[in-house]
Amino acid sequence: MVKVNNSRSEATRTALMDAALQIISESGVRSVTHRKICSRAGTALGSVNYHFKDLDDLLSSAFSFYVEGVSERYEASFSAARNDDQLADAVMDLIAALSSDKRNAILMWELYAEGGRERTYRKLVRKWSKRAKVGVEGYCSANTATALEAVWDGAVMQRILGDASLPDEELRRVVVAIIQLDSSRRYPADSPVEPAGGRGRAAARRRPPSRT
Amino acid sequence: MVKVNNSRSEATRTALMDAALQIISESGVRSVTHRKICSRAGTALGSVNYHFKDLDDLLSSAFSFYVEGVSERYEASFSAARNDDQLADAVMDLIAALSSDKRNAILMWELYAEGGRERTYRKLVRKWSKRAKVGVEGYCSANTATALEAVWDGAVMQRILGDASLPDEELRRVVVAIIQLDSSRRYPADSPVEPAGGRGRAAARRRPPSRT
Repeated sequence: MVKVNNSRSEATRTALMDAALQIISESGVRSVTHRKICSRAGTALGSVNYHFKDLDDLLSSAFSFYVEGVSERYEASFSAARNDDQLADAVMDLIAALSSDKRNAILMWELYAEGGRERTYRKLVRKWSKRAKVGVEGYCSANTATALEAVWDGAVMQRILGDASLPDEELRRVVVAIIQLDSSRRYPADSPVEPAGGRGRAAARRRPPSRT
Repeated sequence: MVKVNNSRSEATRTALMDAALQIISESGVRSVTHRKICSRAGTALGSVNYHFKDLDDLLSSAFSFYVEGVSERYEASFSAARNDDQLADAVMDLIAALSSDKRNAILMWELYAEGGRERTYRKLVRKWSKRAKVGVEGYCSANTATALEAVWDGAVMQRILGDASLPDEELRRVVVAIIQLDSSRRYPADSPVEPAGGRGRAAARRRPPSRT
């Protein structure tokens, strides 16, 4: 495969990924064909093979492209957290972002179902999950991030499909309770939560901006 | 539609639902056709129309049939709970049951994705969700049941697809923390958790066995 990195080529590549995501959200991963994608994107039938190794490469690129887009919508709120309340707010923002459109959720469940069937998609789920958890892991243990991920994943299902999703205030109480189970949690310019003290050394633990 | 309620007819009906579930788990709800189902079930092509109003009726019956089967595997553990620890154990049993086979999870995500697209399937998700929450609602508020559902739903995703699912002990801590946020929780032969006292009246609140 020869990739031409000019802007017109990039636009076609993006159009093909967009077309794939549209078709997946409408009728599922397994219904995607070269023909449908090119027809939807308005490109010549060979264009998938020109821009991607094969259909799987296109599908996996399309999901990655989508994860990037969703992630950008909530990551800034994580970097600003300086205490439990602000971290809880960031988690609530993420839930709001993931629940804000049905198409996002359908793509997620399509990816999950396909992940249950095929290793390639399972890898994509893990990549998505990792990306989403990085924000929390800046302040909490990996286990806490995983527990919070379970909650936000389930809460998104309830908000999109359920008739009994939790009000924000109740969901936030659960998020705070999980954060507070983690005695290793800490924030920039903050001491470890337990034991108390050590504020004087906080500056040394502040993560330098250059790491982002 | 005329239904013949003899055992042979029931067996065919079940075979058709089983065939539908197999096809859904292999390649998605949208790939199901009359022809595929009858071929898989080894029945004549007209048999779907004989036993079901239409394909949607078959799909919805198949999902209901599946929910029944999964639910039976964990409901007994809820009815036995007499304190927070036992309720947490019951939630852990449910998570174990839902995570015990990939096919279950794939069917669930297929149903979610379809539920995002169509009202009929959304109703089925709600029916499933309601059934799963009944066990918790015997002891806790509807909001607590909903919070626990979010956790178990997310935990099942992590256990089937993730590379970083929570160890049982950590997940159980989260479950217990959510249960303990609910000051209205109570168990048969138990007083309300807050305020303390009132044990003498506990027997009057014990749910009679005839209600089950």
